[in-house]
Amino acid sequence: MTAAFATFDEFRTALKDAPQPDAAAMADAQARNGQLTKPPGALGRLEDLAIWYAGWRGVAEPALIAPQVVVFAGNHGVAAQGVSSFPAEVTEQMVMNFQHGGAAINQLCKTFGARLDVHALSLDQPTGDFTKGPAMTDVACAAAISAGWASVDPEADLLVAGEMGIGNTTSAAAICAALFGGDATGWTGRGTGVEGPTFENKCRVVAEGVARHAAAGDGLDILRCLGGRELAAMAGAIARARDLRIPVILDGFICCAAAACLQSVEPGALDHAVAGHQSAEGAHPRLLEKLGKDPILSLGLRLGEASGAALAIGVLQAAIACHSGMSTFSEAGVTDG
Amino acid sequence: MTAAFATFDEFRTALKDAPQPDAAAMADAQARNGQLTKPPGALGRLEDLAIWYAGWRGVAEPALIAPQVVVFAGNHGVAAQGVSSFPAEVTEQMVMNFQHGGAAINQLCKTFGARLDVHALSLDQPTGDFTKGPAMTDVACAAAISAGWASVDPEADLLVAGEMGIGNTTSAAAICAALFGGDATGWTGRGTGVEGPTFENKCRVVAEGVARHAAAGDGLDILRCLGGRELAAMAGAIARARDLRIPVILDGFICCAAAACLQSVEPGALDHAVAGHQSAEGAHPRLLEKLGKDPILSLGLRLGEASGAALAIGVLQAAIACHSGMSTFSEAGVTDG
Repeated sequence: MTAAFATFDEFRTALKDAPQPDAAAMADAQARNGQLTKPPGALGRLEDLAIWYAGWRGVAEPALIAPQVVVFAGNHGVAAQGVSSFPAEVTEQMVMNFQHGGAAINQLCKTFGARLDVHALSLDQPTGDFTKGPAMTDVACAAAISAGWASVDPEADLLVAGEMGIGNTTSAAAICAALFGGDATGWTGRGTGVEGPTFENKCRVVAEGVARHAAAGDGLDILRCLGGRELAAMAGAIARARDLRIPVILDGFICCAAAACLQSVEPGALDHAVAGHQSAEGAHPRLLEKLGKDPILSLGLRLGEASGAALAIGVLQAAIACHSGMSTFSEAGVTDG
Repeated sequence: MTAAFATFDEFRTALKDAPQPDAAAMADAQARNGQLTKPPGALGRLEDLAIWYAGWRGVAEPALIAPQVVVFAGNHGVAAQGVSSFPAEVTEQMVMNFQHGGAAINQLCKTFGARLDVHALSLDQPTGDFTKGPAMTDVACAAAISAGWASVDPEADLLVAGEMGIGNTTSAAAICAALFGGDATGWTGRGTGVEGPTFENKCRVVAEGVARHAAAGDGLDILRCLGGRELAAMAGAIARARDLRIPVILDGFICCAAAACLQSVEPGALDHAVAGHQSAEGAHPRLLEKLGKDPILSLGLRLGEASGAALAIGVLQAAIACHSGMSTFSEAGVTDG
């Protein structure tokens, strides 16, 4: 189904009805892994990734041939409070850059053979400034979730969801503080590179947002009050991928903050997702810990636009290629230790 | 030139005459990096990798289109001392597996579009047991170095050198202890998975080798006395890549031990190389520290056969694709923060 959620309750139901991995395929993949021409465990994390992927795809010897990267862009009311080192018009300029093939994510998608879709979400209507009221109405947030849900290609065999939105590390920090508690400053990072008074101002904005909305309700209410359209859309896309049993690679701090809203509503909602990387945004390691996810890469990226997760596509492709392409000891006539 | 080194001294001269990176190309690449449509530093390690690569290739906007992976196989006299959980005939069986396309490295090369060459080095003549005498004569070691040197395709734009050889983590551990000092047990790892008495025996073998040969001379003498043909060949290939200004991705513990012999003779000999990964072999982090190399990946691999370095090819491809393919702020009409 391709759903349009008019309300959160419909989306909550979809999250509850989410499918599980195929236990038989996973067991078969595990057995196959033990017979491949290598010492047991010698491919390390690649082995776990391949077995996890096999379970979600429901095939013991899966292929990864149609990865899809979706980047959502949104504008934030809080950007007017001077929380970024870039002006808000950069969101739209970067969307043009994505469309013309000039951004990092374009090169990464080309490198790993991924399809790239870009969705600009009502850029001319920034969300409300969350220090003054909810970022979104129920209807606006459900629409953004629905846009994310509808963006996933049912024929894809991997989903990466990313974002562009000046001001959105502020939004993500506020979501984390509201979901997990703790000092607002501890969740606030440098974003595109803010320092000194601009950083202090950013911390104040996050703290004000959390004070106003932390008691708004569950994770989806927090997403509505403190998030942005691109965060809601990422949440919708990640949920839709689960619905289709398409594995997901999570990107950095903002993507993980959106994903955390799903997990807070349904604890197993991210079982079909792995963390692509640990970003340089200060609070990302702490957020990954809250999600229980061990990042595949840690290369100091802090760009967003799905870049860290896209980089991890290559590792997953390699893991699956080894798992499904290697010979067993008996096929190769190699003596098993 | 394609050299055949009859003696170590000829090889030592080649190491001394090694070229440096192109400073102008590196400066141009650095300048370009600052103009690309991303906040400064937002691509983290990818930026450093692209600039490093540009310097060695001598082009500010390089391409990576012809990666070459070379796997050398050798048999070790010390294998007879029961240091591995696999019998020595597995070396040759795995060479057949490489040739038939069934090993992990075959799948990794396919995934990243790398050419794979496999060189079996006199498998019917294991090196001498280094607890009883030098592993190789001068002539045998120089021949193995020459085989590595000759294996590098001058048209390649990236080299990954790897190995297969039952017993070769024992050899690598002994080399490290001889080069860097310290307790033999501290350099000795689990290899293909040895435990208990087999591990204790492996430690004893390493200690005996070190006691006998640590004072043999410089790094190349240590390579000859404690190494194996595949280690000498990797050293030769890495040196030849330098001669051709082809950047190198180092693999795990055994590859790095071979590379360390070069560095010990010429301190800058590995400037054209990055560490592809940190392997699960216990002493690899310590060896990387001695080499001053920060690994790109750390995914618990401990397979050898160039697998960890091959996995890092994807990251380097992505780094270069971003660097050379992204638009600048002015090209894209994006406001620079």
